[in-house]
Amino acid sequence: MRIEGTVTRSIWLEPDGWSVGIFDQRRLPWMIERMVLRTFEDAAIAIADMATRGAPLIGAVAAYGLALGLRADPSDANLAATFERLRETRPTAVNLLWALERVRHVVAPLSGEARVAAAYAEAGHICDEDVAMNAAIGEAGLSLIRAIAARKGGAPVNILTHCNAGWLATVDWGTATAPMYRAHDAGIALHVWVDETRPRNQGALTAFELAEHGIPHSYIVDNAGGLLMQRGEVDMVILGTDRVTANGDVCNKIGTYLKALAARAHDIPFYVALPSSTYDPATPTGADVPIEERSGDEVAAVVGEGGQKVVVTRSPVRNPAFDITPAALVTGYVTEKGIAADAHALAAMLAPR
Amino acid sequence: MRIEGTVTRSIWLEPDGWSVGIFDQRRLPWMIERMVLRTFEDAAIAIADMATRGAPLIGAVAAYGLALGLRADPSDANLAATFERLRETRPTAVNLLWALERVRHVVAPLSGEARVAAAYAEAGHICDEDVAMNAAIGEAGLSLIRAIAARKGGAPVNILTHCNAGWLATVDWGTATAPMYRAHDAGIALHVWVDETRPRNQGALTAFELAEHGIPHSYIVDNAGGLLMQRGEVDMVILGTDRVTANGDVCNKIGTYLKALAARAHDIPFYVALPSSTYDPATPTGADVPIEERSGDEVAAVVGEGGQKVVVTRSPVRNPAFDITPAALVTGYVTEKGIAADAHALAAMLAPR
Repeated sequence: MRIEGTVTRSIWLEPDGWSVGIFDQRRLPWMIERMVLRTFEDAAIAIADMATRGAPLIGAVAAYGLALGLRADPSDANLAATFERLRETRPTAVNLLWALERVRHVVAPLSGEARVAAAYAEAGHICDEDVAMNAAIGEAGLSLIRAIAARKGGAPVNILTHCNAGWLATVDWGTATAPMYRAHDAGIALHVWVDETRPRNQGALTAFELAEHGIPHSYIVDNAGGLLMQRGEVDMVILGTDRVTANGDVCNKIGTYLKALAARAHDIPFYVALPSSTYDPATPTGADVPIEERSGDEVAAVVGEGGQKVVVTRSPVRNPAFDITPAALVTGYVTEKGIAADAHALAAMLAPR
Repeated sequence: MRIEGTVTRSIWLEPDGWSVGIFDQRRLPWMIERMVLRTFEDAAIAIADMATRGAPLIGAVAAYGLALGLRADPSDANLAATFERLRETRPTAVNLLWALERVRHVVAPLSGEARVAAAYAEAGHICDEDVAMNAAIGEAGLSLIRAIAARKGGAPVNILTHCNAGWLATVDWGTATAPMYRAHDAGIALHVWVDETRPRNQGALTAFELAEHGIPHSYIVDNAGGLLMQRGEVDMVILGTDRVTANGDVCNKIGTYLKALAARAHDIPFYVALPSSTYDPATPTGADVPIEERSGDEVAAVVGEGGQKVVVTRSPVRNPAFDITPAALVTGYVTEKGIAADAHALAAMLAPR
């Protein structure tokens, strides 16, 4: 991803070779501000205060946090203490725990400087693997966009997306956005319709990413997608997911289902991008996924530029955060191992062997 | 409609018998503030500055504005001047012109005090007719709600609505809201899901109306309706319309179409409330209706309590204001003459005889 014109990841080692740089995502999309993490406590605070967000990126920050902690004190006691401190920042984040355990497993048999070096190396591997996985999702998705571009004779391919399944939630590329970046870099003309994604307006982050990378896009209210499809102004939908169940149902940000219904009504392909870590074959169907009901404050007050808030209602509010898109409405699942047309193909593609 | 516990219209004659009271809708839903119009210029400014809104209500304000002008000076010259001044406040508002012409037609042959009295009387008729029309829509819609309530054994009927097709846009009752008020007054348990209706959040006005009348409701983001229907938490959808074309297509606030698709997917009845003045048999289909593209500022900045604004994006924005719901997705049209099941029945019901 480019940011201010420079190819950048969302986490990196500083020139000193050991401190860790990230973007302060609380300031985005309004201000590009970098933070330097020099201690495990810096990393823990960045995660807990949501300066950094997105499951894969949080895992990477936590892994480097453990390395920072060991650099200060590589003892077993400090390994345990640092591990606990980082873990408790987001007790329910599966990816965070997975990354911490992975580093601990590698460094446990080592000591001293070798332990520190191994921790940094493993954190680096976690980042590189995330980048490679999303790049592979991008490559798979590129083929879909290329086919539409060919059919349209080079006219811009209009893609609609919802929420932020982007670079800012991963180490690079993002999931749903990876095919867009790859297509743009391959010289394919694109235009992206970015759903605002009320209540938290994550569309503003997606629009920021696309702008930094130079991809034409338009920010629209969540209500607009149906009309755009009616008019033939959407060629494909691609978005991310929080969980895909065994039968292929897609749990994603509230409003996804409405776009899936509209896409089906107009025979517009509807793709879901996911790394294999988001596939959940242990849960049979979407009906088995509990839907988080979040605070009504997210709906009642809109947060904008400079963190300013404005109250839009004082009425009673309901705020379910996710919905379920039935597998039957999904044209394909775009993964790091290729494109699966249905739940059966997805299982064959992603099941552990 | 009740407001602050008192049955009220949205326009009335003050106790002096000649000045005209309205609510300052620019302050709603945050503050209930009444305005008194004492001259035709007061009325013209109220319309032009959007202190008053909604096609039927604007017509009523203009009609009383003409009466106010004639009260000051009942001459032919002033009749013409007042007519022009009021007309130019909203040059494209069909209802406004209709109301002005109607008053002028009645007063043209008269002079002096008789002219003034006739103007007031005609303005009063326009208001009474609007109230009667919406009450009749409410009566027709009540039968639909009553049937659902009976099927549910008295459990609350969950109604979803979009935008503000309410009391605040008419003299009383509203269109889509009239059946809700009638049902509530008839003792039927209701709960209304109020779509926020980005970009202008007219849902906040609907929620205000429902709260004042004591009807249980929840304000939700436009993205939420699909999930609620998936869960069986919506029994019917009823909303207003800007125009119904000859084939029964419904032009209404952006986002209506997405809810119609979701309602169909879950076999939930989808009703459109309209007075006969909104029926447009001269336009063949929804595809013939030009869709207004409004300023991107409406999307980029959210206006909330106290008129405060917050910027939510600085990205390029597109802002189509309406969409078309195909007749095939409409369960029925609720009019002042009854319920029409399709475009054919609607034509037979509303066509001039």
